[in-house]
Amino acid sequence: MTEPLFGRLTLIGIGLIGSSIALAAKRHGLVSEISIQTRSKKTLERAIALGLGDTYSLDPAEAAKVADLIIVCVPVGASEEVAQQIAPSLKPGAIISDVGSVKSSVVQQMRPHLPNGIHFVPAHPIAGTEHSGPDAGFAELFENRWCILTPEEGTDKAAVDKLAAFWRAIGANVEVMSPEHHDLVLAITSHIPHLIAYNIVGTAADMEENVRQEVIKFSASGFRDFTRIAASDPTMWRDIFLHNKDAVLEMLGRFTEDLTSLQRAIRRGDGDTLFELFTRTRAIRRNILDAGQDTAVPDFGRTPAAKGHGTTEKNGA
Amino acid sequence: MTEPLFGRLTLIGIGLIGSSIALAAKRHGLVSEISIQTRSKKTLERAIALGLGDTYSLDPAEAAKVADLIIVCVPVGASEEVAQQIAPSLKPGAIISDVGSVKSSVVQQMRPHLPNGIHFVPAHPIAGTEHSGPDAGFAELFENRWCILTPEEGTDKAAVDKLAAFWRAIGANVEVMSPEHHDLVLAITSHIPHLIAYNIVGTAADMEENVRQEVIKFSASGFRDFTRIAASDPTMWRDIFLHNKDAVLEMLGRFTEDLTSLQRAIRRGDGDTLFELFTRTRAIRRNILDAGQDTAVPDFGRTPAAKGHGTTEKNGA
Ligand SMILES: NC(=O)c1ccc[n+]([C@@H]2O[C@H](COP(=O)([O-])OP(=O)(O)OC[C@H]3O[C@@H](n4cnc5c(N)ncnc54)[C@H](OP(=O)(O)O)[C@@H]3O)[C@@H](O)[C@H]2O)c1
Ligand SMILES: NC(=O)c1ccc[n+]([C@@H]2O[C@H](COP(=O)([O-])OP(=O)(O)OC[C@H]3O[C@@H](n4cnc5c(N)ncnc54)[C@H](OP(=O)(O)O)[C@@H]3O)[C@@H](O)[C@H]2O)c1
Repeated sequence: MTEPLFGRLTLIGIGLIGSSIALAAKRHGLVSEISIQTRSKKTLERAIALGLGDTYSLDPAEAAKVADLIIVCVPVGASEEVAQQIAPSLKPGAIISDVGSVKSSVVQQMRPHLPNGIHFVPAHPIAGTEHSGPDAGFAELFENRWCILTPEEGTDKAAVDKLAAFWRAIGANVEVMSPEHHDLVLAITSHIPHLIAYNIVGTAADMEENVRQEVIKFSASGFRDFTRIAASDPTMWRDIFLHNKDAVLEMLGRFTEDLTSLQRAIRRGDGDTLFELFTRTRAIRRNILDAGQDTAVPDFGRTPAAKGHGTTEKNGA
Repeated sequence: MTEPLFGRLTLIGIGLIGSSIALAAKRHGLVSEISIQTRSKKTLERAIALGLGDTYSLDPAEAAKVADLIIVCVPVGASEEVAQQIAPSLKPGAIISDVGSVKSSVVQQMRPHLPNGIHFVPAHPIAGTEHSGPDAGFAELFENRWCILTPEEGTDKAAVDKLAAFWRAIGANVEVMSPEHHDLVLAITSHIPHLIAYNIVGTAADMEENVRQEVIKFSASGFRDFTRIAASDPTMWRDIFLHNKDAVLEMLGRFTEDLTSLQRAIRRGDGDTLFELFTRTRAIRRNILDAGQDTAVPDFGRTPAAKGHGTTEKNGA
């Protein structure tokens, strides 16, 4: 085993993502000590029972003390409160990061509270499942998945490189971009698809009783996997939509404009417009296959393309 | 091997569905002879090379002659023309059926052309893949999938039972309902999900070049499997939307109404509305799991729930 990259790693929040980081960091010997904090006694007890860390606390300030790397793993709407709580106890030179599915808002929430002399490197691992809590974590979650870092210009290069090395060591491919660009790309690849899935399942749930029963019965004709997406954690997704509002509304505007013109084509019996779109969308599919971003195995983005055996329930957000 | 259910089976159209029926009927010894017709020389030659039938023809009237069961397996928009072509050569007492993903329109297109004394039993097997043509077929396609029959009131019961027995013998679960009810249920479980998938992939395809590249790169975050659906056959899907217009527009109206109210909630920062919906949609997912309509394996409706190993590319329409 090589020298650990970091001394103490503190995880603020120990749900699916936090526990997966703990397990992966331990497996690869990347840190010499793991300190775990969560809000509720119940979750902390699960973390203890699972042996995820070395020290445990309900107090964020306490847990963040003397840490070399702090990763905040809570719903994005809780970022500001966490930053306020841990700021006073951060060690000069420490790296502070997060895993939130939205980046601009997290930067706006946390940045003002962080003292000089610490390195703030926001991150988003594009890996997940629709399950939550410390029991859902597993060390392989990040293997072959992307992790996007969004440091501000002028951030200490050594700190960025060190965090990138951490993510690479637990199997991720690292990419650096601006928070705004991240939020726009994720709006279209992840947030709008989830919103649509929630919406269509909601529409079906409101159907007359006799139709609703048959929707369930014949769900295999396409609807079924929308229901899987629409079973994702409500708190996490509420926060994503509230905190990536601008990009989501922008993309949603484009989506509904396009849908309106499709609706018009159907109403007018304009088969050429439908055929043209249905042909054009095939090119995007081919690009994804060419880029090695999918295999022949359908799994709704739950397994890395490189593995793609479709037997686990991963679903990156 | 038991006595065959039918003498001659004629398949009009020998793409994915037709070839799968041919292979399954042969495997289970359900017919004594298979006659195959398709429009193009090229497809007919593939059918011959694959040994799918006993006799082959480019002429529908010729192929339908002396058949005991005729199954029309062409895009739903071609149903009327096919009915006109085969009507004169139908044998009294023959059963004529189809596999179209839309039912009311098929009935309207075919019924007026069919002579008295034959039994018309429309059908829709909810099983498929995004691949087309005779090479895509396989005998197991219908195993553990639903096949919906939509006979008019007054149709000969023995004929309906015999067709049901045929579908059961190749592995399907049979359900009988009206064409209108079928079209409404399939609009929400299959047609709208496909329309939405085509639409979001189209929206992404129209993005600025730099974003489009990243959509492909980060497609694993949810977008990826929408692209798989949106790679489905353009002709088949154009015909479905043109021929299930009323039900599709009705359901699309409900969908966009709901989406507009979600959009409003996001714009106003109304987290409670989002949270309430995201919680409610979980119940539908639970119902589907309870009904045994899905397993833990994500595959976007491509494999029967009973198997659900996610390693083939089935996608029912
Ligand atoms: N799940 C995914 O697919 C995925 C993928 C990539 C990124 N992410 C991001 O990762 C983060 C965590 O997601 P997760 O799936 O790990 O969530 P999770 O399993 O639900 O765990 C959430 C953790 O945050 C704590 N927490 C919840 N609300 C809080 C609040 N208001 N204040 C302080 N702590 C709070 C919870 O504490 P208690 O249990 O003690 O209440 C728990 O420790 C989110 O920002 C999400 O956007 C998720
Ligand atoms: N694929 C699915 O997922 C699925 C599932 C359930 C039901 N269905 C229904 O099954 C039917 C067939 O679908 P498929 O997937 O088997 O299609 P396919 O693989 O594309 O095969 C279509 C067949 O129909 C023929 N055809 C196409 N256009 C025609 C026209 N205008 N006139 C006469 N013949 C024509 C083709 O002949 P040539 O090749 O010789 O031109 C070919 O033999 C459709 O009604 C579809 O709605 C499909």
